[in-house]
Amino acid sequence: MIDPKPFALNLDLATGILASCTTHIERRLSDMAAMYADVATVQCALSGSNPVLYEVYEQDVPHENGQLLVVTTVLRPGKIGDEYYMTKGHFHARKDTAEVYLGLQGQGRLLMCTSDGQFESLPFRPGTVGYIPPFWAHRMANVGDSDFIFFGVYPADAGHDYRAIETQGFPYRLVERQGEPKLVPMVLLQSAASVPDGQR
Amino acid sequence: MIDPKPFALNLDLATGILASCTTHIERRLSDMAAMYADVATVQCALSGSNPVLYEVYEQDVPHENGQLLVVTTVLRPGKIGDEYYMTKGHFHARKDTAEVYLGLQGQGRLLMCTSDGQFESLPFRPGTVGYIPPFWAHRMANVGDSDFIFFGVYPADAGHDYRAIETQGFPYRLVERQGEPKLVPMVLLQSAASVPDGQR
Repeated sequence: MIDPKPFALNLDLATGILASCTTHIERRLSDMAAMYADVATVQCALSGSNPVLYEVYEQDVPHENGQLLVVTTVLRPGKIGDEYYMTKGHFHARKDTAEVYLGLQGQGRLLMCTSDGQFESLPFRPGTVGYIPPFWAHRMANVGDSDFIFFGVYPADAGHDYRAIETQGFPYRLVERQGEPKLVPMVLLQSAASVPDGQR
Repeated sequence: MIDPKPFALNLDLATGILASCTTHIERRLSDMAAMYADVATVQCALSGSNPVLYEVYEQDVPHENGQLLVVTTVLRPGKIGDEYYMTKGHFHARKDTAEVYLGLQGQGRLLMCTSDGQFESLPFRPGTVGYIPPFWAHRMANVGDSDFIFFGVYPADAGHDYRAIETQGFPYRLVERQGEPKLVPMVLLQSAASVPDGQR
């Protein structure tokens, strides 16, 4: 007996809502407050609306090698200080597994890094197919002024490892400078005062 | 060293063309002539234009467990006799691997079967997410009057087994009856004369 049987779900390509799926997650600022650099703005936002930053719709299947998980993400537009709304970002628990994203609506940026310090970023718009190879942590940011919506598929035995990113972050943050997205090395934001002048 | 590095491709959501991808396949009627029931119409079409039935755009990655292959398919509208244009259909060579399809344009039907005789079909339109579980052969048919375009992701170590479908076919064919798609048991088309009246 194979589980599951074939099935179909309706994905609203305009809103990103995957109807009748098994899992719906809302991520609020309080779920990732420590990940943004502007502590004062985070505190202010938390004492106010504690905004929803993104929503995830996922269809569960057995977490077995050979099965695939389908997920859509709706990342709201906005910034915390000058840092764009972003997803928590994660490695896969089984690190040698890839993921594929397809941009459906809006403008985003896919940020990726490896545990040995490599970093890549890819701009996303509707129709962009992004390949996250095995061993690359991944995070999305919304750099537009409307919902950034993308579809994803990954191996069902991949799992998630959020901890490495929660504790170490990505090598770069994505912030707005003169109205444009710009990558800024993490250290410049975290401890700008201690960076030698020549490296600023 | 991980191969490949992260990459992005542009998928034209209106035409299904995956720009700069590694693989482009054109399937003509001559590539699957024996799969259609109406032999006279097949012969006539082969002696004429030998039409392109569908095109496949795929991005190759290492065929290793944990990697994923991305494919878009553009299935033309049309019929061979009363049988809708369809893809060859296949099992995965590594049978315990799934596949995910996302409908982008047009109207289709996903046909699936197992080697022990189970059969399922799912209607597809833009936004339909179809899950082909491990062990299910799969074929798409275009039941509309414009290109049927869908996006797919599957494990890079899945491989293809076309032979079982080439020799045995699917349990049902998808034909037009009174302007609507209708599933017809294979035996009725192949040897209608030998089917007892009560089973017609």
